[in-house]
Amino acid sequence: MKNTLGTSVTMTVFGESHGPAVGVVLDGLAPGLAVDEAFIAERLSRRRPAGPADTARVEPDHFRILSGAWQGRTTGTPLVIVIPNENVRSADYDQLAHVARPSHADYTAEMKYHGFQDPRGGGHFSGRVTAGIVAAGAICEQALAAKGIRVATHILRCGGVEDAPFTDVASEIGRIEGRSFPLIRDLEEQVEAAILAARQEQDSLGGVIQTGICGLPAGLGEPWFDSLEGVLARAVFAVGGIKGIEFGAGFGFAELRGSQANDPFRMQDGRIVTAANRSGGINGGITNGMPVIFNMAVKPTPSIARKQQTVDFVEGKEVDLALTGRHDPAIIRRICPVVTALVSVVLCDQLALRYGTDYLAQL
Amino acid sequence: MKNTLGTSVTMTVFGESHGPAVGVVLDGLAPGLAVDEAFIAERLSRRRPAGPADTARVEPDHFRILSGAWQGRTTGTPLVIVIPNENVRSADYDQLAHVARPSHADYTAEMKYHGFQDPRGGGHFSGRVTAGIVAAGAICEQALAAKGIRVATHILRCGGVEDAPFTDVASEIGRIEGRSFPLIRDLEEQVEAAILAARQEQDSLGGVIQTGICGLPAGLGEPWFDSLEGVLARAVFAVGGIKGIEFGAGFGFAELRGSQANDPFRMQDGRIVTAANRSGGINGGITNGMPVIFNMAVKPTPSIARKQQTVDFVEGKEVDLALTGRHDPAIIRRICPVVTALVSVVLCDQLALRYGTDYLAQL
Amino acid sequence: MKNTLGTSVTMTVFGESHGPAVGVVLDGLAPGLAVDEAFIAERLSRRRPAGPADTARVEPDHFRILSGAWQGRTTGTPLVIVIPNENVRSADYDQLAHVARPSHADYTAEMKYHGFQDPRGGGHFSGRVTAGIVAAGAICEQALAAKGIRVATHILRCGGVEDAPFTDVASEIGRIEGRSFPLIRDLEEQVEAAILAARQEQDSLGGVIQTGICGLPAGLGEPWFDSLEGVLARAVFAVGGIKGIEFGAGFGFAELRGSQANDPFRMQDGRIVTAANRSGGINGGITNGMPVIFNMAVKPTPSIARKQQTVDFVEGKEVDLALTGRHDPAIIRRICPVVTALVSVVLCDQLALRYGTDYLAQL
Amino acid sequence: MKNTLGTSVTMTVFGESHGPAVGVVLDGLAPGLAVDEAFIAERLSRRRPAGPADTARVEPDHFRILSGAWQGRTTGTPLVIVIPNENVRSADYDQLAHVARPSHADYTAEMKYHGFQDPRGGGHFSGRVTAGIVAAGAICEQALAAKGIRVATHILRCGGVEDAPFTDVASEIGRIEGRSFPLIRDLEEQVEAAILAARQEQDSLGGVIQTGICGLPAGLGEPWFDSLEGVLARAVFAVGGIKGIEFGAGFGFAELRGSQANDPFRMQDGRIVTAANRSGGINGGITNGMPVIFNMAVKPTPSIARKQQTVDFVEGKEVDLALTGRHDPAIIRRICPVVTALVSVVLCDQLALRYGTDYLAQL
Repeated sequence: MKNTLGTSVTMTVFGESHGPAVGVVLDGLAPGLAVDEAFIAERLSRRRPAGPADTARVEPDHFRILSGAWQGRTTGTPLVIVIPNENVRSADYDQLAHVARPSHADYTAEMKYHGFQDPRGGGHFSGRVTAGIVAAGAICEQALAAKGIRVATHILRCGGVEDAPFTDVASEIGRIEGRSFPLIRDLEEQVEAAILAARQEQDSLGGVIQTGICGLPAGLGEPWFDSLEGVLARAVFAVGGIKGIEFGAGFGFAELRGSQANDPFRMQDGRIVTAANRSGGINGGITNGMPVIFNMAVKPTPSIARKQQTVDFVEGKEVDLALTGRHDPAIIRRICPVVTALVSVVLCDQLALRYGTDYLAQL
Repeated sequence: MKNTLGTSVTMTVFGESHGPAVGVVLDGLAPGLAVDEAFIAERLSRRRPAGPADTARVEPDHFRILSGAWQGRTTGTPLVIVIPNENVRSADYDQLAHVARPSHADYTAEMKYHGFQDPRGGGHFSGRVTAGIVAAGAICEQALAAKGIRVATHILRCGGVEDAPFTDVASEIGRIEGRSFPLIRDLEEQVEAAILAARQEQDSLGGVIQTGICGLPAGLGEPWFDSLEGVLARAVFAVGGIKGIEFGAGFGFAELRGSQANDPFRMQDGRIVTAANRSGGINGGITNGMPVIFNMAVKPTPSIARKQQTVDFVEGKEVDLALTGRHDPAIIRRICPVVTALVSVVLCDQLALRYGTDYLAQL
Repeated sequence: MKNTLGTSVTMTVFGESHGPAVGVVLDGLAPGLAVDEAFIAERLSRRRPAGPADTARVEPDHFRILSGAWQGRTTGTPLVIVIPNENVRSADYDQLAHVARPSHADYTAEMKYHGFQDPRGGGHFSGRVTAGIVAAGAICEQALAAKGIRVATHILRCGGVEDAPFTDVASEIGRIEGRSFPLIRDLEEQVEAAILAARQEQDSLGGVIQTGICGLPAGLGEPWFDSLEGVLARAVFAVGGIKGIEFGAGFGFAELRGSQANDPFRMQDGRIVTAANRSGGINGGITNGMPVIFNMAVKPTPSIARKQQTVDFVEGKEVDLALTGRHDPAIIRRICPVVTALVSVVLCDQLALRYGTDYLAQL
Repeated sequence: MKNTLGTSVTMTVFGESHGPAVGVVLDGLAPGLAVDEAFIAERLSRRRPAGPADTARVEPDHFRILSGAWQGRTTGTPLVIVIPNENVRSADYDQLAHVARPSHADYTAEMKYHGFQDPRGGGHFSGRVTAGIVAAGAICEQALAAKGIRVATHILRCGGVEDAPFTDVASEIGRIEGRSFPLIRDLEEQVEAAILAARQEQDSLGGVIQTGICGLPAGLGEPWFDSLEGVLARAVFAVGGIKGIEFGAGFGFAELRGSQANDPFRMQDGRIVTAANRSGGINGGITNGMPVIFNMAVKPTPSIARKQQTVDFVEGKEVDLALTGRHDPAIIRRICPVVTALVSVVLCDQLALRYGTDYLAQL
């Protein structure tokens, strides 16, 4: 189960950056769900490079659904989406066949695949593979929305700019979707300026992103090894650039005492709620009915134009590397729809495990 | 697969806080590994309450191996360890059958199990279940050590006290093991004092812990959904008190540029190493041969004696709660051997998947 | 996942024939199901040696539930049943540490576990392990019965005696349960006589058993790799003595043409039924609402007193073997409740996957 | 995990009979294995309709590899093969949208997918999906052959014609491959004549097929739920037409006594062998080093031209059905390469689990 996520609803990714295509198999979906190609295209466009703050390689993402959909609805059988690679310039990568980009997967791929990996554009490690994830996630996201469950991800911190954290997920999702950068506050220009400044200096930026989920029923997840925290963490660590995740107050808990950290339960309109949400909506691995909120650390893109020290791992000698080619000075904007997609797939799986495979079908 | 972790080497936990026993099934282990009961007992003693900074419920942890061991060695078939609960005072929990401790799993358990869960002492959500994990982990830890792979976990931050981060894992493990609190520096008194101060105020403390692994081969892990980061994260989020994990520089990456964040590769004695280890030993989900290092956020113990606002979830009304019973003012010391155990099991599984089921057997 | 069966409801077996105990972990069960110790004991008694046609080793099966049950109901957390081994005569097996019983697992265990396996009484390969399966299956069987789903297994052929095949599963189950041997027709004496005749000649008998399931909804199972046939087959091949399985007409299909083999669909009281059931209730891997019926081939017990040719696999030389010790001349009677138990666990898993984890809870 | 087989090496199938394509994802393969497109094409040709004994729908099987191969070798990342559907006549199936072909999956698909399934040509239940399996299996088959492990499947019985059973698998494979029908003896004309006779009468034939595997190491498989018998059975029951499987003497064991059924161990050239192979090469779920041999029951193709009684499951009324369209009077010839492919994938998975992911890479 190497490239497959999930138990009842599963997603398998495939493809290399400069191969014929990337794509995804989404299996176990309820039958009868909308397969809305315009919405899939819209979600893909949010992940696509869109300006000077992104890589110059722009793929049109002309996706094709090979199976699992019929008359605009899911059939319940494996849904496959293939997205051809059309804008490929492999010559940019000739220098990399033997030279490890620092903090990239070139060297670890060599250790694992013994030189048989496709080195062009990072091969199967390329962010290009996330296009398939976004396409699959779009279908899941719409299925969840039809049940009142919403997911969104925004930039919380980048280049010294701080966005507001989620406070009312349902209403903030609209604001995030309305902007060219996923932000709650009107900070697009500031974030873009910070990224461009880094690019100017042949460098790159990381940051922190935040995901919010609202509308989930209480009682989802398991104690111990299938805690919702563990399941979500495993999914988002699929993205190579993500190096940390924290739920609710997360690392901030280290500075709090129990009396400050606990979320008092209260009654509100006959429902049990918590007066604060420092737990991020999860207690003992299981949802408590409050929004699920978590932050992720995104490291700066490792591919930078500035000269770096590294090694030729075939020759076994030290070399300098100054990357040419087309790279993102920050992936933080483009990573947000990828995380939303991953989370949407995970939630469809969790709901199917808990309530059965027809739950989202609304029969 | 709710209470089971792993693919080739698997661990299944069971038991409730006030039931007859807790325990563990460890399956898929190579045959011929040492089953050293003294070492298991030693590891259990590190998790056991040990003084005024811990709960007053002290269990002797008289474990019994029911299967899978023969003449002091693993047989290769499922190894079961049962640890009876001997020091049980269920009356302490009568008040809790209907009243949700804030930020504890009482309410979410009710949502999931509809009132059929065993409420005594947190039932299956109790930290007591981690005794089984520690016992199983001890066997894995020794098997890894026989291959030169070492794992250790220490308190990095608690109650305003800061320990040194790992810099040379192999040598620092010895120092951690030599102390009554898992710390690299000689800060036991300071940490204990901070915890006791919190207890005095009927409160509790969280903190940050750090795990280091040395001796792992490069090439372990997978791109995408079985990244070593994802697999380790899923395992440690089994512990209800852990609310965040970050690898290498983690959330610190948000403040770095690529040129500061990347780890230059260098040659050292004919081996490829990195000059820094901000990646925490993992690139693209796969080990690069450097130590794997990650931090975890531990929230303050939610069970505190101070009066808290909450609800009676059966009656559906707001109530106040002032806990009696025996609780830890901080679990941070006791959580360290649990995380080391979880990580040891995960690594045995990863090595078996990569190199085969006999790899650790050293035949 | 070596000793674990299932996806949502899982069963893990453990134990060795002459170790302290055998047992089972049953995880993922709905909360609130009856845990009826008298019924578990009754099912264990059907598996227990009961007369001259069985082994002389009779275990009392004093089982103990260690977790997962509370006030006579499942909690929803892992339910563990331990059954101590009390009647152990390991000396009987001294001759077998190095000598492979023909068609037994002694040699293959050596090839897999390199001499570290527990050789006493077949170790983990012993039929003794099926006691745990029967105990777990009893809980599942009652949960299914509460939903109108019934499972039964009887001897279809043994020692030249032929029982009637299932025609009306629901009514025939009663007859099977009423007899000391699981048979639809009144053939107990004939079967027992055939087995005793084999024992007299220091030999053993095989046969064919048949399982029937009624009350299952249509639509259970999957096309391709999770076909209900495949899932059931994998479960029953856990029993070492089972060497074949066929659904409906099975191998008899080889002699039929399509026009003879097909089951015509008809309307009956507004429901869709089939006029015959040569498909055994499954089309395309999915239940069609008719009873699921399948036969299994049971090989003769390999442990016989008659002198046999074999090898000492440590010395690597040919030897003769005349077994002493206590062995069954036929396991066919005792295997029936084991298969019923395995099938009951599988069905609980399938129903939970399809309809959610609370489906059997009848909340 | 609905359309996915395996644990370390996994195969996921997708596609519908009349959709754009069928295909397969093969993940977890060792890097560096040959990807021989000519051999894949050759294996596909064995599955392709080839004459009057097969359906008139002949697909050219112009497959395309989308990922996971680079310079003629596997990369170690997911290998995807897509096979377009080019010869589609959906009008043939208009009559079937609501009418259940007896003993076909039309009705059970409706029960599972609530009318959202693609009904054209059986949709995802179509034998067309096995083209992907054969393509993936071809790569596995070559990887096994490079290690001296051979797999073959032949028709053992069909239309009253009996082929010889395997006695020396290695040499008989050559004979099977040399014929237009997979048979050990020269019986092609007889089998074809029997099938044509059935077609003439608007009917269809079933039969028995047999698979042999030689070259496997002893010690492969697990006791209990991952017995090699169980794992193989689960894989082959993916094929809707297979309704039974038996290992070694299988159902013939019912007529044998232990003294006749057991396989005596002997020494041969310093190796341990068995003097007979009634166990089919597996004891206690684990290979014993002898050839693994098993038979499978194949039911007659359910789609026949002869008039049949059935129901319109949407209208809920009885109707007669006389099928037009293009159907196989017997799939037994075409099913043999499918089973060989399934078994080859299973063996790659088992070997990777046992010996590690690089085992077949021959580095």
